[in-house]
Amino acid sequence: MINKETVVTEVALRDGSHAISHSFTVDQVTQVVKALDDANVPFIEVSHGDGLGGSSIQYGFSKTDEMKLIEASVGSTKNSAISVLLLPGIGTVKELKEAHQLGAKMVRVATHVTEADVSKQHISLGKELGMETVGFLMMSHMVPAEKLLEQAQLMESYGADTVYVVDSAGALLPHEVRTRIKLLKENLTVNVGFHAHNNLSLAMANTLAAIEEGATRIDGSVRCLGAGAGNTQTEVLVSVLERMNIQTGIDVYKMMDLAEELVAPILPEPQEITKGSLVLGYAGVYSSFLLHAYRAAEKYHLDPRDILIELGNRKVVGGQEDMIIDVASELAGYKIS
Amino acid sequence: MINKETVVTEVALRDGSHAISHSFTVDQVTQVVKALDDANVPFIEVSHGDGLGGSSIQYGFSKTDEMKLIEASVGSTKNSAISVLLLPGIGTVKELKEAHQLGAKMVRVATHVTEADVSKQHISLGKELGMETVGFLMMSHMVPAEKLLEQAQLMESYGADTVYVVDSAGALLPHEVRTRIKLLKENLTVNVGFHAHNNLSLAMANTLAAIEEGATRIDGSVRCLGAGAGNTQTEVLVSVLERMNIQTGIDVYKMMDLAEELVAPILPEPQEITKGSLVLGYAGVYSSFLLHAYRAAEKYHLDPRDILIELGNRKVVGGQEDMIIDVASELAGYKIS
Repeated sequence: MINKETVVTEVALRDGSHAISHSFTVDQVTQVVKALDDANVPFIEVSHGDGLGGSSIQYGFSKTDEMKLIEASVGSTKNSAISVLLLPGIGTVKELKEAHQLGAKMVRVATHVTEADVSKQHISLGKELGMETVGFLMMSHMVPAEKLLEQAQLMESYGADTVYVVDSAGALLPHEVRTRIKLLKENLTVNVGFHAHNNLSLAMANTLAAIEEGATRIDGSVRCLGAGAGNTQTEVLVSVLERMNIQTGIDVYKMMDLAEELVAPILPEPQEITKGSLVLGYAGVYSSFLLHAYRAAEKYHLDPRDILIELGNRKVVGGQEDMIIDVASELAGYKIS
Repeated sequence: MINKETVVTEVALRDGSHAISHSFTVDQVTQVVKALDDANVPFIEVSHGDGLGGSSIQYGFSKTDEMKLIEASVGSTKNSAISVLLLPGIGTVKELKEAHQLGAKMVRVATHVTEADVSKQHISLGKELGMETVGFLMMSHMVPAEKLLEQAQLMESYGADTVYVVDSAGALLPHEVRTRIKLLKENLTVNVGFHAHNNLSLAMANTLAAIEEGATRIDGSVRCLGAGAGNTQTEVLVSVLERMNIQTGIDVYKMMDLAEELVAPILPEPQEITKGSLVLGYAGVYSSFLLHAYRAAEKYHLDPRDILIELGNRKVVGGQEDMIIDVASELAGYKIS
């Protein structure tokens, strides 16, 4: 099944969960998975947008228990394998075992790009359970290629079959993708993957750059159904790769049809690059900073974009939201008390 | 004003006319032009979607006379120059003179990629009138780079200050853009430009490829307001070029603001890559073929995509719609009578 040049993982039913406030129903997931399976998509990811166990007041409650969605997905496939995402700290061993029991065949263990060490336990467990395991390095634009390699090597040492460069903020430029993928390809023995976001309208450009540098695992979301401006649009990617004679094993016509007939009706409105998603990609910061920055900007009479860009320059990460008010205060010319 | 590395022409008020059935009002155009001018966009194109004189039963009637829109645009600018598009055979000398009289400073004379010879009269007139003149080679994916160069050289010989490679169907792949722009740069003394469409989600990738190969004139449409899947999204392009330290002279924040506040509300719905626009880019054919192909497919029990792809392979051009039924009949295994 995965003896292809480019192996696609469809993430609309996981990353896309963000775009529809985690409201997927069993019926929607069953229909989409059946069609993706029929189109011969190798991997289909099904989880809360923030991974297993994400359903919470903090990350948003799922309308339908993700285990029900995973079970329905497994039951709807003949060829495709179901993948689950797990962020250590949000998802736990318990949920991973449950997803495995229900028939999930791949686990992707996602950490911030500097925190690969927290993935060890779950990557190891994935291997023990006989699952295909992936290390998923989020916000990969925030560190130089050398640091990214070091973290990827950690994941490789834990047993990951694949390590992904994840452009969570859609902030990477094509040459930055090339440098990263090239270095990983030269120094890892496992597969290298790439996950794009379209905040700077570069999802397809970056994906092709990654493939050219040797990435063989690629994420896409049908109709761009993903967080922010969405991901690389899968049915378009498959069409472009077909035009480039790069094999994915996926049926182009079936992908076009399911995008139009099954996925488009799920979106409350078409995905596009709005001011908010553009600013996040331009500044290279977490989406959770947006609201805080707007509030701080109002207080200090600043443009929120100046705050976000400065946060990006300082490489502020999730959990450091306190920094936002400090940065705003500094930019406004106040001394920090 | 145009002493920049990349000189942008904003086409939302011309190419975008297709996306809203040529319904621009004086009020909309005035507001958008004022904001674009304030953001320091060098050129703003204002015409019917099919160029001067396009308002007709065949191409769709303009809600407001384009000359009124051009006049209002000129009156709303301090820095920007107003451009008009002219397709010989649709627009005439009369309309070009009128637009010039109203204050249009640039004319882009557009022909099919193999028919540059019909641009001579209008390019010459543009020069005589003291306008900046551009040759605009549409459907550039349909011929090899060498043929494209030959046609570009014709336009150069007529006096064009710039020749554009126009990817009307959004069908070019990045390496195909590179080959074309490179050959033109090596053999022309005038400026080389590039106009993308996003049918294959490659508008930004192709635009960056063109710039890397030396194109200095680039088209964009705010919020992708253009035909099909739209063009390179201008406010995103300007953000990306700023991140790449390529000078456009355009204010990024002002572009983000006007996109969100003035242009987004004009769109009946966000631009996205639908099955229709994807198929057109994948097959590399005229949008006018779509309906004919669907009808022929029904008659011969075929997939319309097979017809469109075969039409693309045979390089069928506008005006040859009769070929569609022949191709369908052949694909269905009938002898052509």
